[in-house]
Amino acid sequence: MKNQLCEQLGIDYPIFAFTHCRDVVVAVSKAGGIGVLGAVGFSPEQLKEELDWIDAHIGDKPYGVDIVIPEKYEGMGDMTAEEMEEQLWKMVPQGHMDFAQKLLSDAGVPEWPDGTNSMGLMGWTDATATPLLEEALTRPGCRMIANALGTPPADKIKMVQDSGRLIGALCGKVKQALAHKAAGLDFVVAQGGEGGGHTGEIGSVVLWPQIVDALGDTPMLAAGGIGNGRQIASALAMGAAGVWTGSLWLTVEEAHIEEAQRDSLLNATSEDTIRSRSWTGKTCRMLKNEWTEAWERPDTPDPLGMPLQGMVTSDGMRRTATYANVGECQKVAFNPCGQVIGQIGEQENVRTVMFNLLSEYVDAVERLNNLMPET
Amino acid sequence: MKNQLCEQLGIDYPIFAFTHCRDVVVAVSKAGGIGVLGAVGFSPEQLKEELDWIDAHIGDKPYGVDIVIPEKYEGMGDMTAEEMEEQLWKMVPQGHMDFAQKLLSDAGVPEWPDGTNSMGLMGWTDATATPLLEEALTRPGCRMIANALGTPPADKIKMVQDSGRLIGALCGKVKQALAHKAAGLDFVVAQGGEGGGHTGEIGSVVLWPQIVDALGDTPMLAAGGIGNGRQIASALAMGAAGVWTGSLWLTVEEAHIEEAQRDSLLNATSEDTIRSRSWTGKTCRMLKNEWTEAWERPDTPDPLGMPLQGMVTSDGMRRTATYANVGECQKVAFNPCGQVIGQIGEQENVRTVMFNLLSEYVDAVERLNNLMPET
Repeated sequence: MKNQLCEQLGIDYPIFAFTHCRDVVVAVSKAGGIGVLGAVGFSPEQLKEELDWIDAHIGDKPYGVDIVIPEKYEGMGDMTAEEMEEQLWKMVPQGHMDFAQKLLSDAGVPEWPDGTNSMGLMGWTDATATPLLEEALTRPGCRMIANALGTPPADKIKMVQDSGRLIGALCGKVKQALAHKAAGLDFVVAQGGEGGGHTGEIGSVVLWPQIVDALGDTPMLAAGGIGNGRQIASALAMGAAGVWTGSLWLTVEEAHIEEAQRDSLLNATSEDTIRSRSWTGKTCRMLKNEWTEAWERPDTPDPLGMPLQGMVTSDGMRRTATYANVGECQKVAFNPCGQVIGQIGEQENVRTVMFNLLSEYVDAVERLNNLMPET
Repeated sequence: MKNQLCEQLGIDYPIFAFTHCRDVVVAVSKAGGIGVLGAVGFSPEQLKEELDWIDAHIGDKPYGVDIVIPEKYEGMGDMTAEEMEEQLWKMVPQGHMDFAQKLLSDAGVPEWPDGTNSMGLMGWTDATATPLLEEALTRPGCRMIANALGTPPADKIKMVQDSGRLIGALCGKVKQALAHKAAGLDFVVAQGGEGGGHTGEIGSVVLWPQIVDALGDTPMLAAGGIGNGRQIASALAMGAAGVWTGSLWLTVEEAHIEEAQRDSLLNATSEDTIRSRSWTGKTCRMLKNEWTEAWERPDTPDPLGMPLQGMVTSDGMRRTATYANVGECQKVAFNPCGQVIGQIGEQENVRTVMFNLLSEYVDAVERLNNLMPET
């Protein structure tokens, strides 16, 4: 399974595991894939702590870091991040804030003990991104940076590439992939509509070959529906250089996840997800629940755009993660995941998951070899 | 590529081509796949004419027929089809009829020259289905029947199987596949959300392996996004016994299609489709246009359910097909197709399409063979 991308990163299998959990990062990298730490929303101090732990436990295996490196917002000019956030707050209606808070309190989600309302832009600005990026680049073990949203600015691309690392970004449309390629990114993650988190409308089977063809020499990682070895074979058959996986790792033993949240995910079928704008303002696939339904009703506020909706909900996002086990929290919790969650029904450890991926992949290729046409 | 399903049907490649055009049926079967004539909406006389032509041109190659064999509607009891249709018409608001007619006339779609309003249930009842089925079963060349919607009633399954033919049906969810299997169908077509026509929400990459696993020994045909050989390799890698294709054949030389409609399809990208209830009342993927947008607006009527919405629109469906080249017809035309339409940019003949499918398939399997993990 080794190809050029594997050589560049020093990994055995082009299996990229996107996760917020440092133990999963380490376990996947040790098993021959590469763990990618999702650091959106981390402060620089939090990221330093996570990377210290990873560096101490991963040996000589490589890993990656995923952050948001936004384009500069129009009109930012000389504004500081604080000034910009102040302007943005003026655009957030109080009715939306009240509606969000009511949904949380009706479900019994506790407030913060110190009474704070920890809201904010959650790292969507350049002011947060730069320190995070700089922190990641101090780590020899960190071999790649992924941008969670859009084409990074040229100066950030240069910063990463000059340090000898790879930089890539996600896309859901051919147009975005072409922009990434033009900017000189080292790889592109193409996520089909069945994927978890921010995701577009085109299904993976249709999207992946289009992106492969658009990218030419630039390697593509296939995302959106990768949960077993057959799906990996599908993706590689299309010309993908590897796969980018997320939902697959949400419920593994090594994941830091509350019992109630793990149960929500393990019990979910593929029909229990919805693409909703209710948390971030951009369509994001997550488990359906009373929160997502509440924002869909005609008689309730409509989600604002990004980043405003994220400012309305970031308090709820943190509280439902922290208090996942409390009250009826799962009814309003933010649980991003892909449709593939339906095929994950039990908790396993990372080594078992990786072993199953590889052996099922081999079986799938066997099956294809037995079905070669006589032309 | 030969497997048991191929042996049973007498074909070389498990490539099923769903089409309304008899020339395409013949060309695909002659090229080693199997053409399936979509006969929904045909009268028994129309079907006889089409099958006479196919039989006269196809030699000893096999083909299939796709019709709607509905479950009996509740409360039908002793009602005749005419009585039932009369009852259904009472449930259709005049406002919906007027809105549909206005959309058509605003786009300059001509009325029928004899002034009739050819509306009706378009074959959704048992009364239409039985004569169609009986006609198909008089043809030795017809080796399989596919049901376009739901699990067929037991008596129809027996009728087909007793005649020595295969019968299958489409599904978009595991639950439907299990019902098909329990009813003893010979194969199941699993269509992912990117597919054209009536289609569900689960993306193909996620749906296909779940349906394969649910069906066990019952063969699965993968649908939704199959437009090239790489996508076929994907599907077969998952365990599909073959592929069911539709959009791929809409614009081939052999297709009977008006210039303007062919242009709409060839120019479309994967982002130009929408799942809309505006024609049949059930979510159906088609090209977006002013018709689909008009029914989405909050200030206009909402689509009724099935079969009522079909009764509102069947006149429009026929007129926009017949008068596809006239006026601004394409702005309101019914153009069902999958997201995969985006990768079809030129008119080719069936032999070329089949050749490309097979050679790209072989390349994809080659690629996978070169990416076997060292475990």
